[in-house]
Amino acid sequence: MAKVKQSIERVHIIGVLVEDHPGVLSKLSGMISTRGFNIDTITVGKTMNKGISHIVISLTGDDQTIEQLKKQVNKLVDTIKIIDLNPKHSVLREHCLVKVESSAEARDDIINISKLHKVNVVDMNEQSMIIEVVGRPEKVNNFLRMMKKYNIKNVCRTGVNAMRRDSNNNH
Amino acid sequence: MAKVKQSIERVHIIGVLVEDHPGVLSKLSGMISTRGFNIDTITVGKTMNKGISHIVISLTGDDQTIEQLKKQVNKLVDTIKIIDLNPKHSVLREHCLVKVESSAEARDDIINISKLHKVNVVDMNEQSMIIEVVGRPEKVNNFLRMMKKYNIKNVCRTGVNAMRRDSNNNH
Repeated sequence: MAKVKQSIERVHIIGVLVEDHPGVLSKLSGMISTRGFNIDTITVGKTMNKGISHIVISLTGDDQTIEQLKKQVNKLVDTIKIIDLNPKHSVLREHCLVKVESSAEARDDIINISKLHKVNVVDMNEQSMIIEVVGRPEKVNNFLRMMKKYNIKNVCRTGVNAMRRDSNNNH
Repeated sequence: MAKVKQSIERVHIIGVLVEDHPGVLSKLSGMISTRGFNIDTITVGKTMNKGISHIVISLTGDDQTIEQLKKQVNKLVDTIKIIDLNPKHSVLREHCLVKVESSAEARDDIINISKLHKVNVVDMNEQSMIIEVVGRPEKVNNFLRMMKKYNIKNVCRTGVNAMRRDSNNNH
């Protein structure tokens, strides 16, 4: 009996260095959605080299399909390089701003929870606080779960930012 | 003599809440690039509401043209809401990972500079360090300038993450 290769879906993080032309992002994201993938998160930031941007994409799929997708991305004329950001060999972080309603009664509680989680209150007024959470995506999820009992007014997450560790850490 | 309205180009930060369908990002970024704008940075993250994503875009243009662009974005079928993230009334932050070559001689220097700038070393091995910088985009720029004398191997910036302060802070 032939072995059936199991296709297990998991989150993949892909880094792409691209030439920073108008339309690059549209082409890249269009190509990914045409293939039926939904981009979970994406960040596009500048690099130290003028005219080159760095994109980090997280999406869900099985290994084989994602491999094919990476080959297609590599063929795009503006792609300079694909970087495999396997979570085992990479630093994965996320930045999140969360605005929580802070009545006089809740305020101290929220400040204490924030201290405990080592996250910073970056803005505060009579109605609300804005708290900055930085860490692995799970840490952001945990903190947001803690805040659920207060009234969360707004959440802005950057999505995953990631960098591959150098090789002697990759064991 | 008729007054000529000056069109001064500056960086604009726009927040967009969208329905999280495949192809949304491609449509949005395609529409922006068709109008001749280059997106400087973009982040797409999840919100607390399943099926709704939050996008933060930074781009350069004069006020009038950006106003028109916002109206167009608002007309897209997947757009739920546009949020004006005027820097005067918003918290602006960025997340950056930077990998620096760290020879035995340079290592202590880099660690000291990192402490001084209140940024964290999140990975270290014999060849390199990965440092996490979080703050206003200018802070990230400053830190990267400081690192230039060492050998920067890689930079991953998320681009601007932003949240509007509540109204009684908007003076």
